[in-house]
Amino acid sequence: MNCPIARSLERVGEWWSILILRDAFYGLTRFDEFQKSLNIAPNMLTRRLNGLVESGMLEKRQYSEKPPRYEYVLTERGRDFRPVILALLAWGNKHFAPEGESVMLADKETGQRVEPVLVDAATGRPIMDGGFETAPGPAADEKTRARFAQRDARHGR
Amino acid sequence: MNCPIARSLERVGEWWSILILRDAFYGLTRFDEFQKSLNIAPNMLTRRLNGLVESGMLEKRQYSEKPPRYEYVLTERGRDFRPVILALLAWGNKHFAPEGESVMLADKETGQRVEPVLVDAATGRPIMDGGFETAPGPAADEKTRARFAQRDARHGR
Repeated sequence: MNCPIARSLERVGEWWSILILRDAFYGLTRFDEFQKSLNIAPNMLTRRLNGLVESGMLEKRQYSEKPPRYEYVLTERGRDFRPVILALLAWGNKHFAPEGESVMLADKETGQRVEPVLVDAATGRPIMDGGFETAPGPAADEKTRARFAQRDARHGR
Repeated sequence: MNCPIARSLERVGEWWSILILRDAFYGLTRFDEFQKSLNIAPNMLTRRLNGLVESGMLEKRQYSEKPPRYEYVLTERGRDFRPVILALLAWGNKHFAPEGESVMLADKETGQRVEPVLVDAATGRPIMDGGFETAPGPAADEKTRARFAQRDARHGR
């Protein structure tokens, strides 16, 4: 697939995997910690953790020889997934928290609540203001270009 | 579940649903358009579309009486999901596009490539600079507070 969203989802497009990553951002590293937090069957957890290791999101490290014990630590690729988690957090808070926010993003120093918003890195302009759109990049294949051409045709461009 | 990420994933935590939303952002609305784009079995597509309608992400509208035909249009809740899609796009482009970007975010007027980045809406400070963390919000239950207390204890706070 030529689509970066589809490629991303191939790695994490699954409920449990994203919740494991969420817990890794909370600082969990050990099998039993993930299991206790997620209340997930051990074989399912093993499969998901192995999947995240194979996709380069987590690194498996031995922390005890006798008995052999491993921990799972976020890689750079895994840490880079944090904006996706935080975008999900903001969306969930807006639409599925009628009783108020149970988890929020906060400034580490002041503890003040922070609203995460996506902006153009160069200008600071909010992406959701309507001035931006996805477009074919330099590596777009025929199918991708056709998809965008259809979109533009629908919009009368 | 008290976690807004888990609640969000209950609605969309599934590969096909997120790709359907991606296509809806490209402007697709009709069953056959989604099917052609995603190459998905009709019964699977029907189930996913109905799921997205039930979770309030898409609205089903009749556009033809004879024969009866429906289109699926993003609701406000669905449109608010765009930052998640764009965060996935940026992450996929960084980590899974060795040949270059096939899809990018661009300024509508100039066509220039734009890098979407998550910032504190109040100050413009990048979220990834290390100064922010998730924290229990006003509606946090016991389990959520315990989870954060454990995290802080692990970090020696």
